[in-house]
Amino acid sequence: MTQTKSTNITWHSGKISKEDRKAKMEQRGVTIWLTGLSGSGKSTIAVELEHALIENNHHAYILDGDNVRHGLNKNLGFSPEDRTENIRRIGEVAKLFTDANLITVTAFISPYRADRDEARALLGDGEFVEVYIKCPVEVCEQRDVKGLYKKARAGEIKEFTGISAPYEEPENAELVVDTSELSVEDATRKIIAYLEQEGYVEL
Amino acid sequence: MTQTKSTNITWHSGKISKEDRKAKMEQRGVTIWLTGLSGSGKSTIAVELEHALIENNHHAYILDGDNVRHGLNKNLGFSPEDRTENIRRIGEVAKLFTDANLITVTAFISPYRADRDEARALLGDGEFVEVYIKCPVEVCEQRDVKGLYKKARAGEIKEFTGISAPYEEPENAELVVDTSELSVEDATRKIIAYLEQEGYVEL
Repeated sequence: MTQTKSTNITWHSGKISKEDRKAKMEQRGVTIWLTGLSGSGKSTIAVELEHALIENNHHAYILDGDNVRHGLNKNLGFSPEDRTENIRRIGEVAKLFTDANLITVTAFISPYRADRDEARALLGDGEFVEVYIKCPVEVCEQRDVKGLYKKARAGEIKEFTGISAPYEEPENAELVVDTSELSVEDATRKIIAYLEQEGYVEL
Repeated sequence: MTQTKSTNITWHSGKISKEDRKAKMEQRGVTIWLTGLSGSGKSTIAVELEHALIENNHHAYILDGDNVRHGLNKNLGFSPEDRTENIRRIGEVAKLFTDANLITVTAFISPYRADRDEARALLGDGEFVEVYIKCPVEVCEQRDVKGLYKKARAGEIKEFTGISAPYEEPENAELVVDTSELSVEDATRKIIAYLEQEGYVEL
């Protein structure tokens, strides 16, 4: 017979509270909402940020196009309504991850101020940190890592943010990180410094 | 000037892998998919399971009606199409949490076998543990914790699972937990014993 080892476990009943999670995990759940043009460096910074946090014994997770657009939001297109629903769902998922007390890093262009504000409104006080990954469109276009600007200029991609669709710059972002001036590492360190300063993590 | 303490942090570049997460968190991400009738005990068991895991230094999170139906899925009703989309989204979110290496406990009736199998197909090998929270409908109706069976009998709720809508029992669930025979604590211990036996956690 299989021995039931779980008779050794500590047993308390009842719901786990946010405070319980904070104490156990030694961090505060938060959504770090990276917004900016295609090619501004959002995903690269998200990867570095997650790596640095996890290496230093924190718990973090990235929501980005790779794991959301092809999964949860695969039934959405790029019409204005679908873009809004896309960001709404991401906000709701970020809220769940933040409730689980993770440092949740979202990396989406999220061009509309109203959509970002909706996401902010879903989260609690101090649970939403908007980080504007700022970079002139000319620099993003010159980088053109994915070749998307070229396609947009050729008209192969319609409604491309920064070229043929608007990007509404954040007016009250908690942080602005200019990637035409800062290296990826310095940009990431700037975000981590903010998280330390505000008491989300201790590194 | 604010001192940038983050100059002390360990710095490595690149994506965090599943293996990195497993090593750091000393557990394997998995979705524990609880399915069963209303009143069978899914939510109660989910709460106990999450509590026991977190008290014992594991990382777990519950997805249930409370945090999903009023948030991510608030734009869905109870038509067959909406029920399917409801479970699809829950499966996708469970996949994200499992990818984040959490022990993810879902507590939804999820009456259709095909919908549960879709969720299973989203997750990788060994990442989906279907647990049938079994309880005769007569017993669930007698408990009627939320008064829903009474409303269903009175015709105030249409298409109520077990009364006026079908529940398709799992045929190949990893575990069957009969709550007409086991206490909540014993039911929960049975699930934890399975998680230990299969190497998801060490308690």
